[in-house]
Amino acid sequence: MKIVLAQQNYHIGNFEANTQKIIQAIRKAKSDGVELIIFSELCVCGYPPRDFLEFNDFIEQSMASVAKVAQEADTIGVLIGAPSRNPKAEGKDLFNSAYFLYQKEIKHVVHKSLLPTYDIFDEYRYFEPASTWEVIHFKGKKLAVTICEDIWDICDNPLYKINPMDELMKQSPDIMINLSASPFDYIHAEARKNMIALNVAKYGLPMLYCNTVGAQTEIVFDGGSIVMDAVQNIITELPYFEEAEQSLDWLDDGQIVVGGQQPKMYQSSAILGQSFNANFATDNIYAAIILGIRDYFYKMNFSKAIVASSGGIDSAVVLALACAALGAENVRALLMPSQFSTNHSVSDAEKLSQNLNNPYDIISIKNVFEAYGQSLDSVFSGLAFSVAEENLQSRIRGAMVMALSNKFGSILLNTSNKSELSTGYGTLYGDMAGGLGVLGDLYKMQVYALARYINCKQEIIPQNIIDKAPSAELRPGQKDSDSLPDYIVLDAVLYQYIEQRKSPKELIAMGFDAALVSRILKLVNTNEYKRNQFCPIIRVSPKAFGVGRRMPIVGKYLS
Amino acid sequence: MKIVLAQQNYHIGNFEANTQKIIQAIRKAKSDGVELIIFSELCVCGYPPRDFLEFNDFIEQSMASVAKVAQEADTIGVLIGAPSRNPKAEGKDLFNSAYFLYQKEIKHVVHKSLLPTYDIFDEYRYFEPASTWEVIHFKGKKLAVTICEDIWDICDNPLYKINPMDELMKQSPDIMINLSASPFDYIHAEARKNMIALNVAKYGLPMLYCNTVGAQTEIVFDGGSIVMDAVQNIITELPYFEEAEQSLDWLDDGQIVVGGQQPKMYQSSAILGQSFNANFATDNIYAAIILGIRDYFYKMNFSKAIVASSGGIDSAVVLALACAALGAENVRALLMPSQFSTNHSVSDAEKLSQNLNNPYDIISIKNVFEAYGQSLDSVFSGLAFSVAEENLQSRIRGAMVMALSNKFGSILLNTSNKSELSTGYGTLYGDMAGGLGVLGDLYKMQVYALARYINCKQEIIPQNIIDKAPSAELRPGQKDSDSLPDYIVLDAVLYQYIEQRKSPKELIAMGFDAALVSRILKLVNTNEYKRNQFCPIIRVSPKAFGVGRRMPIVGKYLS
Repeated sequence: MKIVLAQQNYHIGNFEANTQKIIQAIRKAKSDGVELIIFSELCVCGYPPRDFLEFNDFIEQSMASVAKVAQEADTIGVLIGAPSRNPKAEGKDLFNSAYFLYQKEIKHVVHKSLLPTYDIFDEYRYFEPASTWEVIHFKGKKLAVTICEDIWDICDNPLYKINPMDELMKQSPDIMINLSASPFDYIHAEARKNMIALNVAKYGLPMLYCNTVGAQTEIVFDGGSIVMDAVQNIITELPYFEEAEQSLDWLDDGQIVVGGQQPKMYQSSAILGQSFNANFATDNIYAAIILGIRDYFYKMNFSKAIVASSGGIDSAVVLALACAALGAENVRALLMPSQFSTNHSVSDAEKLSQNLNNPYDIISIKNVFEAYGQSLDSVFSGLAFSVAEENLQSRIRGAMVMALSNKFGSILLNTSNKSELSTGYGTLYGDMAGGLGVLGDLYKMQVYALARYINCKQEIIPQNIIDKAPSAELRPGQKDSDSLPDYIVLDAVLYQYIEQRKSPKELIAMGFDAALVSRILKLVNTNEYKRNQFCPIIRVSPKAFGVGRRMPIVGKYLS
Repeated sequence: MKIVLAQQNYHIGNFEANTQKIIQAIRKAKSDGVELIIFSELCVCGYPPRDFLEFNDFIEQSMASVAKVAQEADTIGVLIGAPSRNPKAEGKDLFNSAYFLYQKEIKHVVHKSLLPTYDIFDEYRYFEPASTWEVIHFKGKKLAVTICEDIWDICDNPLYKINPMDELMKQSPDIMINLSASPFDYIHAEARKNMIALNVAKYGLPMLYCNTVGAQTEIVFDGGSIVMDAVQNIITELPYFEEAEQSLDWLDDGQIVVGGQQPKMYQSSAILGQSFNANFATDNIYAAIILGIRDYFYKMNFSKAIVASSGGIDSAVVLALACAALGAENVRALLMPSQFSTNHSVSDAEKLSQNLNNPYDIISIKNVFEAYGQSLDSVFSGLAFSVAEENLQSRIRGAMVMALSNKFGSILLNTSNKSELSTGYGTLYGDMAGGLGVLGDLYKMQVYALARYINCKQEIIPQNIIDKAPSAELRPGQKDSDSLPDYIVLDAVLYQYIEQRKSPKELIAMGFDAALVSRILKLVNTNEYKRNQFCPIIRVSPKAFGVGRRMPIVGKYLS
């Protein structure tokens, strides 16, 4: 049987574009003599559709699209993902389903059993889990079709009480097929392959695993669809971070063959352990962020970006990433020196834009800051320079760069990193402004690693930007280290608290200073209100700020 | 049996304060000869604890608090809410539980069966549902204890597949007791009483219903704990929006008696129907917002607020509410006229603060705006005045008022209403700045209703503020009606789309103009990125922007 996996990039709620993309792949497959084509989870509406699912009209449009695709599925079997309605009175109104289309009909609808409701996932908010399981019969074969999470609960401490593959095995299927929308994080691709291998080992069946690709605001789907045979050979692995199709032959003897590719035995790789390693997976993080930027602009129907370029490491990395993602000609840098800026701030930032060959402007904020000072004199007179004046400079820059953003129709890319966001070392409506957080899921030491990665072939980011001590330059001689612990220690503690959810006691037992731990955790917990107003962050870690981390704002815990 | 319902206001994660409050109530009850005291859902840790529940240390602190409370429960039975651990390997690691404490021991732990996972609720993110049910035996009586949602699925289209009260009835309980954290919205108190009456009618048992009170960031819990006897008499109803305790006698013949109160038959009241009514429940909305402001400040450990007072209706209502919640002396108004401001803007705003007797300052933004103009001239030269300059004025004000906020340690109260937030008629980092959205869940017509309510005894808000046409005053002669449909029509369409999730087709069938519907829905859906960066909004409706409404940002649907 000739089969195709279609790893595609969808746009949430854009039924017309998604359907067209699906139909094009089906038509091409038919012309190649393909008998079965497999798409990814909720491909018809895009994943995650979130509360659009609560709109009846949205479900109707999705249903209409499935019907349209079914008209193309005449001589070819098609597996696509879309919501379906729960006909029973009790339970949630929808299922997260895989439709099997053939002979221009919906032949079978499989429902997802395990509904991830943690981190960035909210599936039980919308869907009823499956309570019956049936293989799909197609051309004499029995297909065990599951959806994403359905194959992930294969461990000693299962999250769910049932296991759909165990149920499907009762009907002696010939192959496992999984439709996924499985997002990237820097350890997830390895975890995913490991989980597929565990399923293959447990059930002794080959697995056809089709993932989606593309960024949906903060969540990056990395593709990497995979075919594994019944003895854990990787028959083919589709590319990461791009659309791709792969055809394969499933022979009558059970072998799966992909032309021009040799099977290779699955080998488990090391994944990030308990300690923080800033240099881990930098290449994949780079690729994920590039896709994250590109898809955000494409799907928002924007082409131009603007970046506040300070001469510091964060804005330098953002500018380099933006130029790579959008083309240097579409990325404008704005340099906004103040009376507290050092000379190298401007010269380093200029050199950066010269290296990148992107347009830049220099506008001093000195006059505006002075005008504020005069206007505020009636209420501030006699009061000392304080955080109010520091923040004011940052907000003057925020409004300045937003003025250009509004005037020229570009999106402001935010440059805050995860260390700053964790500790509240940033100004709301100032340097925290922007439409998309490019580095918001990278600790400062990871930003340095990314800078070195960007510079690996040639110096794009001037070395002085990498070498100099970080400073917000909001008062004379200011350094980050005046307000924050050393980033090496800070990042290690933050990683243990945020990613690993360690307690103060555990952190102290790991050797971190007790007073430092208490200070850092308090900073994290009392700055929830700031992060709550932050833009979406391109997610690259297993625990990013944003939709996957939901903390009380008025909470009083370790604060 | 002498019983007390303790309707208390907790602080999330503040185990010390919460435990102390619980213990004080227990000690008082013991000295009054009370045999059973009932608290509310997750009272030990506060509701909703959100992702704090993922921290092992948080659970341990909660467990330690339960143990501490148990030491007080010697001769008195105590029902408190707290998370408990799931001892089984499969399923989520926690239950949402009610602990029955007596003779200094944990005698019984009841788990919540129905886990709301919709709107503002995320309970299946954390908790495993109960799968066994047992009444609590106490002094010869059988108590059927449930937790909040457990009694809400009593309808023809149930959301869940089991019903815990049906299960508990198999053990012939004598009374129903429900521990709740049931939030306010302007129809919820009526819905709650109706649901209690339905349970009483179905099971033929009295109900002791204990709710929490107090605001947790955006969510306001309104109290209103209630005791209903087996024939739907309301024996007592505790106050709304404040802490309260009520003792009652449960007699051996099954009667429940509250000293000094006459039972009254439950009567169902009208609740808001399918059409939008701006004048609905204004008194309760007022009380909810006052509590929302007060608790936000108290729990964030702030006492002072600042409001950008424009002379318009929204800031006037916010200022009046803030003065009522925090005391006029703690609320500073900042008037920031520009060259486009009309004379009445300043005089109306001054009159308002004179009426309220709160301090105010006037700082013109003219000089700062001019300084920006000169600084931007190098890039804006020759380009027409546009939305960039309009937004810039709003952002200058945002930074100005934030400078005072930072300098004097006050929280900026945001004045955006739901009509503006829906349509994106506001400036990010400008008038959308602030720590708490006071009016963000009220459509413009509801803001007018609230203004009239505030003025019902005497003119606090100058009549001219209520009478004049709304304007952002960002260009000469500007009116809201230049950019937006009439608020009467706009609000009606928004209500149908946001609260009722109507489709364009249904809206047109209701008589709304097709082009207008398309325009409004597109505005709502393309401005998700703005609302995503907005501060928490005090929730008063069944569908507020924020944590209860989760929309894709890059989505393409009706846009």
